[in-house]
Amino acid sequence: MIRKFLPREFNFFDLFEKQADYAIDAAKTFKEIISVSAVVDEAAYQKIRTLEHQADDAAHTIMDQLNKTFITPFDREDIHSLTKEMDNILDMFNTITNRLKVYKLPGGNKQLMEFAGIIELSVSSIAKAVKGLRAYKDTKAILDACAEVNRLENVGDGMRDHVLAGLFETAKDPIAIIKWKEIYEDAETMLDICEDVAHVVESILVKQA
Amino acid sequence: MIRKFLPREFNFFDLFEKQADYAIDAAKTFKEIISVSAVVDEAAYQKIRTLEHQADDAAHTIMDQLNKTFITPFDREDIHSLTKEMDNILDMFNTITNRLKVYKLPGGNKQLMEFAGIIELSVSSIAKAVKGLRAYKDTKAILDACAEVNRLENVGDGMRDHVLAGLFETAKDPIAIIKWKEIYEDAETMLDICEDVAHVVESILVKQA
Amino acid sequence: MIRKFLPREFNFFDLFEKQADYAIDAAKTFKEIISVSAVVDEAAYQKIRTLEHQADDAAHTIMDQLNKTFITPFDREDIHSLTKEMDNILDMFNTITNRLKVYKLPGGNKQLMEFAGIIELSVSSIAKAVKGLRAYKDTKAILDACAEVNRLENVGDGMRDHVLAGLFETAKDPIAIIKWKEIYEDAETMLDICEDVAHVVESILVKQA
Repeated sequence: MIRKFLPREFNFFDLFEKQADYAIDAAKTFKEIISVSAVVDEAAYQKIRTLEHQADDAAHTIMDQLNKTFITPFDREDIHSLTKEMDNILDMFNTITNRLKVYKLPGGNKQLMEFAGIIELSVSSIAKAVKGLRAYKDTKAILDACAEVNRLENVGDGMRDHVLAGLFETAKDPIAIIKWKEIYEDAETMLDICEDVAHVVESILVKQA
Repeated sequence: MIRKFLPREFNFFDLFEKQADYAIDAAKTFKEIISVSAVVDEAAYQKIRTLEHQADDAAHTIMDQLNKTFITPFDREDIHSLTKEMDNILDMFNTITNRLKVYKLPGGNKQLMEFAGIIELSVSSIAKAVKGLRAYKDTKAILDACAEVNRLENVGDGMRDHVLAGLFETAKDPIAIIKWKEIYEDAETMLDICEDVAHVVESILVKQA
Repeated sequence: MIRKFLPREFNFFDLFEKQADYAIDAAKTFKEIISVSAVVDEAAYQKIRTLEHQADDAAHTIMDQLNKTFITPFDREDIHSLTKEMDNILDMFNTITNRLKVYKLPGGNKQLMEFAGIIELSVSSIAKAVKGLRAYKDTKAILDACAEVNRLENVGDGMRDHVLAGLFETAKDPIAIIKWKEIYEDAETMLDICEDVAHVVESILVKQA
């Protein structure tokens, strides 16, 4: 069973939920940014960048407390992994948005918007799973959320294959291929990272069972 | 010394050997697929995909048992690493074959066939090393197999450099360069992964010495 | 407090300093190689290759001794991480120089020379931090060196974005884009690796505090 914290002890769950909320904000912001037809500019990128910095602070606080706290709600290495993998989600939003800006790619790309929709679903399932760890009563709901993340990762694999095949068939400009290929692969990597988070959550549940 | 298992205990070695056999099957299947001059189609890809799924099941069984078993033949983290690295071999066969399909690349490419030959040799040395762990008498044979994997990885490095240099010199179509460059790099990564497996095996032997 | 070694015990610090010196040599050699206008040839590449081999030997000696030594100056896993990350610096110099050779790229590229300057600064700060671990008195100086490495990584991120944006704007030949894009990304990765080393050093200090 997950050990209960004394009131004044550091509450890791509060910070995990903060990380999850930043991820949800970033997924929503990303979807908005790429839906606009304009090229991703510095102002748009800074919205993601700001969220990434805030999430970084949350991650650092968790790591600091991990070094200072004797009693933790679950294995120290799992807290470490969960924090790091959650942070990878925000890093990846930062990477892909920055790349769109550097490559001066126009928004409104339908394939990428479809990807962004899947990513938003995956991140919201991640948030459900991570937030479920606190109460830790409804194991089934947590595992269902993780299963959904895994399912969406498979959807993303198929989508990436389909989109890349289409890109190579229709695009005639090799430079456009270089740019979009990388963006689509980044989008699929987002879903891989969400799957990594789900795996950490699953392994925490297994140990607590 | 490696602790002997009681008859009814879970036998990790059986599963490691299963993983090794799937890797050998995949190496052989991959070589066949790319020797045919036709483009890699869905049917060809599914042969590799099926092996990857079966290998996945074996890996999951090992991980499950690892969580349930008190006595293990060697360090838990080494069982974990060995299982995961062996699984990476199958994942990489899946990645490269899928990419050939998505990129609609024709078979019969001599450079890739040469790579596939080296990969088959490396995987078969891996299988020899991994299977040697069970009896664990002939340490020299295991270490020789690992040394061969390391040697083949160096051969692969040189081959990749040579093939890429040639590609950039002769290919005039940048899109073909983008595609084949990635395939050749994947092929070399296969040999890197085999080397990672060999390193895990070597470190298991060191600890048991 | 860092435990003092008896005179005849293996001195890990000597080897860490050796690794740091090889990194400094490689940074200097790399800067020289790419400043010359000629294409990077085999002779130039071998200078880096030789340093990488020597650094490899130092890393192997550390790992060997780690398995044999009971008392270590700090956590075994930190010695392992520090050694491995330091080794990654030399591996990356090898990778980028080899790529320049394989791609037959001319030297004298101003952007890359600027990167090489930043890399040299970062590596020299790494050396300062790592060498500081021995005496371990002036914690502030070590942490300042780590902070400088982190700062330079941020500089490198901005430089890569700027250089890639420029490359896509000015270069008309997609094949040149493919090649240089990879080189610039490698250069930025060098700074990421230095940051990873700095993080290991920082975490060693935290534990010893």
